[in-house]
Amino acid sequence: MSEQQTSAAAGPAPAAGAGVIDLLGLLAYARLVAFFRLAGDAELAPTLAGKGELAEIAVSEQANYRRLHDRLRELGADPEEAMRPFVVPLDAWHARTEPQSWLESLVKAYVGDGIADDFYRRLAELADPETQALVRDTLVESGRAEFVAAQVRAAIADDPRLAGRLSLWARRLVGEALSQAQSVAARRPDLAALLGGGAREAAPGGAEADAAEPGDLAMVSRMFADLTDAHAARLEAMGLSG
Amino acid sequence: MSEQQTSAAAGPAPAAGAGVIDLLGLLAYARLVAFFRLAGDAELAPTLAGKGELAEIAVSEQANYRRLHDRLRELGADPEEAMRPFVVPLDAWHARTEPQSWLESLVKAYVGDGIADDFYRRLAELADPETQALVRDTLVESGRAEFVAAQVRAAIADDPRLAGRLSLWARRLVGEALSQAQSVAARRPDLAALLGGGAREAAPGGAEADAAEPGDLAMVSRMFADLTDAHAARLEAMGLSG
Repeated sequence: MSEQQTSAAAGPAPAAGAGVIDLLGLLAYARLVAFFRLAGDAELAPTLAGKGELAEIAVSEQANYRRLHDRLRELGADPEEAMRPFVVPLDAWHARTEPQSWLESLVKAYVGDGIADDFYRRLAELADPETQALVRDTLVESGRAEFVAAQVRAAIADDPRLAGRLSLWARRLVGEALSQAQSVAARRPDLAALLGGGAREAAPGGAEADAAEPGDLAMVSRMFADLTDAHAARLEAMGLSG
Repeated sequence: MSEQQTSAAAGPAPAAGAGVIDLLGLLAYARLVAFFRLAGDAELAPTLAGKGELAEIAVSEQANYRRLHDRLRELGADPEEAMRPFVVPLDAWHARTEPQSWLESLVKAYVGDGIADDFYRRLAELADPETQALVRDTLVESGRAEFVAAQVRAAIADDPRLAGRLSLWARRLVGEALSQAQSVAARRPDLAALLGGGAREAAPGGAEADAAEPGDLAMVSRMFADLTDAHAARLEAMGLSG
């Protein structure tokens, strides 16, 4: 599989190189902002039980944020500093994919965060084993799959026209995610170098590092393309098409 | 102290009478909505660290919601049914006290939830020991006191004019809380009867019970008046006046 090829090409990553700090900072902010967005979207829930369920999902994101935050501190990094470069692209992703209904928020929580998790997992495979284990532990998709898929399927059974609209929404979520991932890779050469399998020496703070190489950016697109199987399985679980 | 008098007057409460289900339902919804509001207010935080801290506080509210929710189920009640009567007054409280700044949200998280907690604790003293213990465990004020007080004091040191404005804000929070507590007591006679120390037999679901007696409503005001010491201490910790 391409997974193994990529891992082999990466070789042993530095224990806490700038790429790893970037990765943990990206993940930490992704979790923090997902917490806030899920909590905000829960206001759209039609029932108190639904609000409670979404609150539960949101809280699991905060717990993951806390672990990643603490790990950054352990590695001697300033967690807020490490998260800062990712505030703009992740906020932009959320701003461009603001759910207009309860069902859209559910699909986003499942499909959007699902493909992001797949992507983060793939990135982490290129880092040291401890980072890999932590990232794997902080991927939260499984808990929400059943809750979301059942609700979306039931809604589509009630009103089959929803299937087309929500499929389109899912496609938009993935398109926007790819676009933001490209933007992150372009701005964070150390992170992109993780992808490219390079062991580039990072400038302090990453701010002065060279621009990402075009090959690293192409790698982001290839990685996303590799994630389609899991994405298609999520769509199918909800009764949507790709 | 008046605490002991009230407890003595109440006598042994029924293990899961309608008053206790009402109390747990009120608290569960109070925690759930506090979770959402705190998560929403965190967007006002000027720093990533502040956002992270408020997320932490919000999450502790969700954990308490979960415990109260589970306890309602244990008692054979439908948790959503038990929470429903309190949705309108608690949502109204939050709508009337929507913070317009980070400092207002901090003062609200400390003063507003502080006085509400004091009130809930006092109510719980009138219920059975197990309910008392659970309610005591789910009062979360202590965790946030230090974080909030330090930030508000620092802001006032920077700009002393803030003290007057925030003192007014704190007064408004308490006024609105009293008004909503009165409205809850008027609508939920079983809960008001807990206050009044009566052992009134509850109609199923509480919906058909008699209207609250005027004495029960007066009791709400007296209870609030009793809470001023703790309230004054919180104001002082932040450098505000009553």
